[in-house]
Amino acid sequence: MEEKILELLEKKDYSQLKKLLEEENYSDISEVLNELTKEQAAIVFRLLNKDDSAEVFSRLEPDMQEDLINAMSDQELSGIMNDLFLDDAADLVSEMPSDIVKRLLKNTDATNRKYINEILKYPEDSAGSLMNPEYISLKEDMTVRQAFDRIRERGNEAETINTLYVLDPSRKLVGVVSVRDLLLAKMTDKISEVMEDNVITIPTTTDKEEVAKMFDKYDYQIMPVVDNEDRLVGIITIDDAMDVAIEEHEEDFEIMAGVIPSEDSYFKTSVFQHAKNRIVWLLVLMLSAIFTGTILTRYEESFAVMPILVSFIPMIMDTGGNSGSQASTMIIRGLATDEIETKDVLKVWFKEIRIALIVGAVLAVVNGLRIWIQYKNPLLALVLALTIFFTICVAKSLGCFLPILAKALKLDPAIMASPMLTTIVDALSLTVYFTIATLILKL
Amino acid sequence: MEEKILELLEKKDYSQLKKLLEEENYSDISEVLNELTKEQAAIVFRLLNKDDSAEVFSRLEPDMQEDLINAMSDQELSGIMNDLFLDDAADLVSEMPSDIVKRLLKNTDATNRKYINEILKYPEDSAGSLMNPEYISLKEDMTVRQAFDRIRERGNEAETINTLYVLDPSRKLVGVVSVRDLLLAKMTDKISEVMEDNVITIPTTTDKEEVAKMFDKYDYQIMPVVDNEDRLVGIITIDDAMDVAIEEHEEDFEIMAGVIPSEDSYFKTSVFQHAKNRIVWLLVLMLSAIFTGTILTRYEESFAVMPILVSFIPMIMDTGGNSGSQASTMIIRGLATDEIETKDVLKVWFKEIRIALIVGAVLAVVNGLRIWIQYKNPLLALVLALTIFFTICVAKSLGCFLPILAKALKLDPAIMASPMLTTIVDALSLTVYFTIATLILKL
Repeated sequence: MEEKILELLEKKDYSQLKKLLEEENYSDISEVLNELTKEQAAIVFRLLNKDDSAEVFSRLEPDMQEDLINAMSDQELSGIMNDLFLDDAADLVSEMPSDIVKRLLKNTDATNRKYINEILKYPEDSAGSLMNPEYISLKEDMTVRQAFDRIRERGNEAETINTLYVLDPSRKLVGVVSVRDLLLAKMTDKISEVMEDNVITIPTTTDKEEVAKMFDKYDYQIMPVVDNEDRLVGIITIDDAMDVAIEEHEEDFEIMAGVIPSEDSYFKTSVFQHAKNRIVWLLVLMLSAIFTGTILTRYEESFAVMPILVSFIPMIMDTGGNSGSQASTMIIRGLATDEIETKDVLKVWFKEIRIALIVGAVLAVVNGLRIWIQYKNPLLALVLALTIFFTICVAKSLGCFLPILAKALKLDPAIMASPMLTTIVDALSLTVYFTIATLILKL
Repeated sequence: MEEKILELLEKKDYSQLKKLLEEENYSDISEVLNELTKEQAAIVFRLLNKDDSAEVFSRLEPDMQEDLINAMSDQELSGIMNDLFLDDAADLVSEMPSDIVKRLLKNTDATNRKYINEILKYPEDSAGSLMNPEYISLKEDMTVRQAFDRIRERGNEAETINTLYVLDPSRKLVGVVSVRDLLLAKMTDKISEVMEDNVITIPTTTDKEEVAKMFDKYDYQIMPVVDNEDRLVGIITIDDAMDVAIEEHEEDFEIMAGVIPSEDSYFKTSVFQHAKNRIVWLLVLMLSAIFTGTILTRYEESFAVMPILVSFIPMIMDTGGNSGSQASTMIIRGLATDEIETKDVLKVWFKEIRIALIVGAVLAVVNGLRIWIQYKNPLLALVLALTIFFTICVAKSLGCFLPILAKALKLDPAIMASPMLTTIVDALSLTVYFTIATLILKL
């Protein structure tokens, strides 16, 4: 599709281009727009139907949104601002530089501006900042027929009509009804008869990660957001919750690799910013490894006598690091999904230590035999077998304790993933190694 | 809520318990049921409203489902099987042991059985296996009024009525219309006038990971699944797509930690299974580290002369491993979200090498100064500074190339995460280290 659009732009065949755009999907159009130059994008954007332009606009990258706003007249801008869903409008306001924000708010209806400001008052990671105040509310004493009238009247503005919320006179949420329930009911039924009065609600202050978990748990498409007096203030739709869930996962991948998470995508993040996001943990971990190094200096005499001992250091360090991060990754994910709680620490450790005994025994035997055969030295084989075994037990135990400890200290358990854990396990496993070696080999 | 249920079970106050259950949410009830004993669960389950029991049942853990089925009469079972959504029924059939499957299918209506068998024919990871054949279809020449009649008639069985699909006489998908469009249209309008005829469809053979990405991209709540002749065969709802997306992320976390992904949760997986899932990669990586060890034996003389060199091995290995896996994690995620494609390899490498130059320079200077001050040996400081610098350049380059190479070879890029990469980087960084050391320190 991109080539076709570029071709029509080149030919200046705008009527054909307009036709093509009408047939395409919002997401696909916005994807192409993101790739065009400022000038090209402005032309294509103006060719969009008025109804489509807000939908396409809300899906663009912030850079492109900024360029387009700069190319728009105040009248065009006001059209967009009032057509955008309020949660998308609030996102836009929060992402643009302050001079643009002024223009945006100036060209927004007073009512919408009030709502946008309200959304922006909530902390960035809260349910309040995710919600959309454009829902349709019903009253208990309405009939189904009256409810349909209200849907017809308000249906164009609301983000969804599939779920409708029933409020009492003080705007407290007392029930929920789906459009399906309404369609299957009699026109004369009262809303109070067809509504479900047991509604799961999300307080405005709920963390957005928690919001995503609630959607995952309850399988609803839409959930209501209430203030601390149980008054309905907005709705959250599952597609926004899905975006949050995916974003949180991507952040966890970065944290677990010792990278400070970035808001932007890989290519959009500058080289300098990437370097900044990575350098902190690398420095911390590099300096921590000095400690492991000083442990080794204590055994200089041992490996002066028996230099072959040095050649096993990489294998011990890698096996310790890998078996530890296998455990820590499982536990970090379990903590993230709430399957594991801090009070489960002993239960988890009991499981990990049994896994360590099996894995440790197998690896110890394989490694011991390998060394015995290769070096014809049964004592050396014994040293390495015991070291591997204890290293795996220590690594799996730390991989269990450290993330749970982090959680208990209200830190993100993900920081205890591979990089941090490996550094700690290294120091311990090399101590184990040289202790066993000096004892058995009498060095 | 769990304590309350246990208390009422204890007191055998079943009427009170029934009342309590009516007020609670399906997901919450199923969560409690999963914690009860077989006998307790069977009692609670029988107290549920007939309408609720299928909803609660579909949310239970497979073990508990099996226990309940064993406790059910054929009549009860047939009630459940015919009330379950067909995609959930198909999931159940695919998860139960064969003797239970026989009973399940015997107690299912012929039509439903046909659909279940059709879903099960599709590969496990395909759109076909995710879809639900219970949708509402309309015809182009229907009026809006006729459409509403059809919704009222079929609305109880269908998974959703929010989106309706318009089929031509050969069941080809020609349009889509939302219940909102219908409500906002005139009763006498033709469906062909109100429908959207540009429909994004999912072929039955699409991989479920791709399905999740399509939902993320297009922000639809429901998408239609078509066979290779464009005939509508089912629908997928966004909550199922969200489950897939989350499951895929969790699998990626495990693969990236060198663990073979497990279908079950942490606690449900046995110690033996955990050990099995972890031991393969540990063995492979342990034996690969032997290669790194043999590199070290080539330099035995060097560290016999200057044993302090050994004490820097952990720092070099850790820094190499960490900076490599920072890069590989970013690239693996970029590949997973389609931001990075294999053809971007040079663009990505150019970015990574510039990041490596900045990060490497900073860490080299910090480390060089530290060693100069601590050991008063400028040549040793130079060796370590250069080693850290080159190690980071090599690690970031490999962290970029290996995942992209894996993708090009149609392997999962996630296997090139930290564990595998670290092993490879170790060998290279230690070679760099001793080469530089022997050259500069003339060992």
